[in-house]
Amino acid sequence: MSHSYRLIVSCPDRVGIVSRVSSYIAGHGGWITEANQHSDLATGRFFMRYEIKAESLPLSIDAMRDDFTAIADEFSMDWKLSDTAKPKRVVLMASRASHCLVDLLYRWTAGELDCEIPCVISNHEALRALVEWHGIPFHHVPVDADDKAAAFARVEALVEEARADTVVLARYMQILPPNLCQRYAGRIINIHHSFLPSFAGAKPYHQAYARGVKLIGATCHYVTEELDAGPIIEQDIQRVTHCHTAEDLVRLGRDVEKAVLARGLRWHLQDRVLIHGNKTVVFA
Amino acid sequence: MSHSYRLIVSCPDRVGIVSRVSSYIAGHGGWITEANQHSDLATGRFFMRYEIKAESLPLSIDAMRDDFTAIADEFSMDWKLSDTAKPKRVVLMASRASHCLVDLLYRWTAGELDCEIPCVISNHEALRALVEWHGIPFHHVPVDADDKAAAFARVEALVEEARADTVVLARYMQILPPNLCQRYAGRIINIHHSFLPSFAGAKPYHQAYARGVKLIGATCHYVTEELDAGPIIEQDIQRVTHCHTAEDLVRLGRDVEKAVLARGLRWHLQDRVLIHGNKTVVFA
Amino acid sequence: MSHSYRLIVSCPDRVGIVSRVSSYIAGHGGWITEANQHSDLATGRFFMRYEIKAESLPLSIDAMRDDFTAIADEFSMDWKLSDTAKPKRVVLMASRASHCLVDLLYRWTAGELDCEIPCVISNHEALRALVEWHGIPFHHVPVDADDKAAAFARVEALVEEARADTVVLARYMQILPPNLCQRYAGRIINIHHSFLPSFAGAKPYHQAYARGVKLIGATCHYVTEELDAGPIIEQDIQRVTHCHTAEDLVRLGRDVEKAVLARGLRWHLQDRVLIHGNKTVVFA
Amino acid sequence: MSHSYRLIVSCPDRVGIVSRVSSYIAGHGGWITEANQHSDLATGRFFMRYEIKAESLPLSIDAMRDDFTAIADEFSMDWKLSDTAKPKRVVLMASRASHCLVDLLYRWTAGELDCEIPCVISNHEALRALVEWHGIPFHHVPVDADDKAAAFARVEALVEEARADTVVLARYMQILPPNLCQRYAGRIINIHHSFLPSFAGAKPYHQAYARGVKLIGATCHYVTEELDAGPIIEQDIQRVTHCHTAEDLVRLGRDVEKAVLARGLRWHLQDRVLIHGNKTVVFA
Repeated sequence: MSHSYRLIVSCPDRVGIVSRVSSYIAGHGGWITEANQHSDLATGRFFMRYEIKAESLPLSIDAMRDDFTAIADEFSMDWKLSDTAKPKRVVLMASRASHCLVDLLYRWTAGELDCEIPCVISNHEALRALVEWHGIPFHHVPVDADDKAAAFARVEALVEEARADTVVLARYMQILPPNLCQRYAGRIINIHHSFLPSFAGAKPYHQAYARGVKLIGATCHYVTEELDAGPIIEQDIQRVTHCHTAEDLVRLGRDVEKAVLARGLRWHLQDRVLIHGNKTVVFA
Repeated sequence: MSHSYRLIVSCPDRVGIVSRVSSYIAGHGGWITEANQHSDLATGRFFMRYEIKAESLPLSIDAMRDDFTAIADEFSMDWKLSDTAKPKRVVLMASRASHCLVDLLYRWTAGELDCEIPCVISNHEALRALVEWHGIPFHHVPVDADDKAAAFARVEALVEEARADTVVLARYMQILPPNLCQRYAGRIINIHHSFLPSFAGAKPYHQAYARGVKLIGATCHYVTEELDAGPIIEQDIQRVTHCHTAEDLVRLGRDVEKAVLARGLRWHLQDRVLIHGNKTVVFA
Repeated sequence: MSHSYRLIVSCPDRVGIVSRVSSYIAGHGGWITEANQHSDLATGRFFMRYEIKAESLPLSIDAMRDDFTAIADEFSMDWKLSDTAKPKRVVLMASRASHCLVDLLYRWTAGELDCEIPCVISNHEALRALVEWHGIPFHHVPVDADDKAAAFARVEALVEEARADTVVLARYMQILPPNLCQRYAGRIINIHHSFLPSFAGAKPYHQAYARGVKLIGATCHYVTEELDAGPIIEQDIQRVTHCHTAEDLVRLGRDVEKAVLARGLRWHLQDRVLIHGNKTVVFA
Repeated sequence: MSHSYRLIVSCPDRVGIVSRVSSYIAGHGGWITEANQHSDLATGRFFMRYEIKAESLPLSIDAMRDDFTAIADEFSMDWKLSDTAKPKRVVLMASRASHCLVDLLYRWTAGELDCEIPCVISNHEALRALVEWHGIPFHHVPVDADDKAAAFARVEALVEEARADTVVLARYMQILPPNLCQRYAGRIINIHHSFLPSFAGAKPYHQAYARGVKLIGATCHYVTEELDAGPIIEQDIQRVTHCHTAEDLVRLGRDVEKAVLARGLRWHLQDRVLIHGNKTVVFA
């Protein structure tokens, strides 16, 4: 089957980056099917993402990595080269609410999310049947309020065992410990049920209801140690009126959460999201 | 020309309100062209807005007010009865930025805003030509940072002299003093250039840029003594990406501000906005 | 459990309708929790929807129906009175594409769609496992291109046997015969994968791709004998760019279809959609 | 003042295009501030837009054009090289409706539209005062239904005399003759007040009202000989309900028209719109 290499680069901006990279690729006959570039004028940083047909290149990905190391050194690049033939491994975490999990599993089944899902971890049993119906192992790791450390050690072991590239908090209602956030920095994706930075923390729809806002929202972001403060990948909103109760906001918000998390995760899986300080460049 | 009466009511909810009010109107042959009702189940408060063809009623508005006083007492109603033949008088206030003012003046000229504009007040001279071209008096009231009281006394005198029903802060970049906020409570409309409660206060687009949000917004609200915290009338958003600079956010935000302020003001002028604590019921 | 009666009325507009209806309800102590009215000035027709707490009324729904018949005659009303304790019975029809069906079944499980689903009918076997996992009977009725009449006779028998109030074509890719459309007029809901009236008929996403539109859409409408021409209940759109292939449009469109069908069906189930010629009044 | 060169290219896709172009630019020390590329897989055509800081290049634009001609020949490129120091000359055409013209003139004044406006042409006198207040010459060219040729000869002469790069039909309610469409192919921009291809032709809001759609729209497109059928640059929509009359649709639609035309024109002025058959690539 046809597959592609994805070259992701960020580095200080200067003359000649594109020329150097594209000439290297063209020199080997590489066919670029998608190219995105961004020069951040405020910080002088350059970002690029190339998608290259693997069969157009006479090189193995390892040979290409060796070659590219020299170019990367020359331009002080942060870079990675991924192969679409090797999809990411994504561990999903959830609590009791099923909407995001149902949505992600449907999209995965429909081929919208190019990844492997080695397992789902939850602090409740509620979603076991759903997960197992999709043929995915389900791990129940209850979180004892008096000994969270034990639970998160178990979570970490499961994530490691699953050789996960990415962890998705699909309405997992627990706060991850700092060491886990650090270890998987830039690889843990959360969906927060408000338009951040409004209504961080608990019960955002009830906060929104109390404030009388006319739009509610959801935010997909990378998890950092500071709660609900990591780099934002995607946001969206839904109009509400005085007719809507707080429960209506919860219901209507579910659709926004599902859509925003799915878009954010899809872009992450396709290496379209580049972290830039506490912000993101999204080549959507 | 055909005109209408607008009956606006809020009161504790109970059986029989609609029956009593509609029977009174029907009893006089009143033709209701638009009717909106809302029962707020959380607070047990009832809201209604009726628009009645004036020519269908054999009563003067004053006679109707007398009659309705008895009904209102029976149900402990807050109410008002307005006549579309007597449009509201709206004082616009602005600083240097012209976009909201240009937009409101255009809509006023086009018949979208049913009001009189006795004058525009600004702390700068920049918009005089624009305002006067529309045939509207322009008052320059500079605000001296060391003696704001004098400036706001002058503003208050001008607003009073204009017999204003409503004051619109169309990107007027000064904070009104508490006494003015109280005196015109529920009648001063502000446009804030963020999706409140995010980014209250100064330079919201720059705050939004720094946070890396993927949507920017604007909020039209009634002014209260607490900055950017009054009842929200309307909000909207605009999608942004990593490609947009802070200046782009300012530019794109202008369109959202214009649209949100114009909608909020139009609804206010049509008596469609009922204040409910720190929230609004908007019969849009 | 608490339940409500829903009174749905349309009739020629005249003075006194609301007074008469609300006085009848108030006279029996009925507590109206939600009221919507619309006067269509172009056609002189009046529409209303009242939701009344059942326990506030000392009457059976049958007694109320008897009483109301007199009022209805007086005003030449089309009307119905439904009881939320007796949810509608909805037969879902689908072909191979699962997205709308997965979405509706999830929402039904989550309590967003207040109905019974006596069965799902499909012209393919593909979705049997999904449907049966939800505990719903699945009927495979293949449609032979050379003898569609037999298939639709079977469909009609199943729908009748299910005592269905409503039939939902959740991406059922067959055209229903005229007699079925007539028999269930106003009760068959279809989702069309374009922004009607653009791109009626087959392969609308490919039509949209060929035309180079910048937004794609979906339309939920009642089925009439004329293909894709019935009263529109709800529409929505999704932005697309030159980057999107026809297949991307199909993928992105799925989310719009799901959302639009779910909203339209929810409103229908709540008796919020009143047909007015070839248009709808939606008290959303 | 700082200015940029914009290199716009489309050609058959093959290996080495980006390498060749970027190496040429880098070879002269050119600093690319913005780069966009698109490979259309369906047609095998490649599109690119580079924005290059003029002061980073030791070449005149003419020297650069000479150099680039060889590269262009090698790759069979359609290309152009523009200089932001030489803004486009845009003739605006309008009839009686002022909303699009007011909006464009405001944006032009605010610096959102980087162009010169040598004149406005209208078949009515209504907008003269507005135009002249902005210091722009206004030409009244009435269109006699019995001798349109004379009017359009006059229009063509005025456009030519103005040395116009672009003509904008800002709700100019006349159909341009084929020869004018051909002569300025890809340079005449129209705003149509519907979501094309729905409701082409006359009175689209009234068509939309009659059909009972739940969203209305507007479309900005290049004018071709076939009415309302040219390449679409931008579209947007506005939600409507059964409460809205046809006149409300006209009013609400004005805001969509203004926004869509302004975005489309801005992108055109920035050489972000590349025509591809009857579609567009928009590097927004």
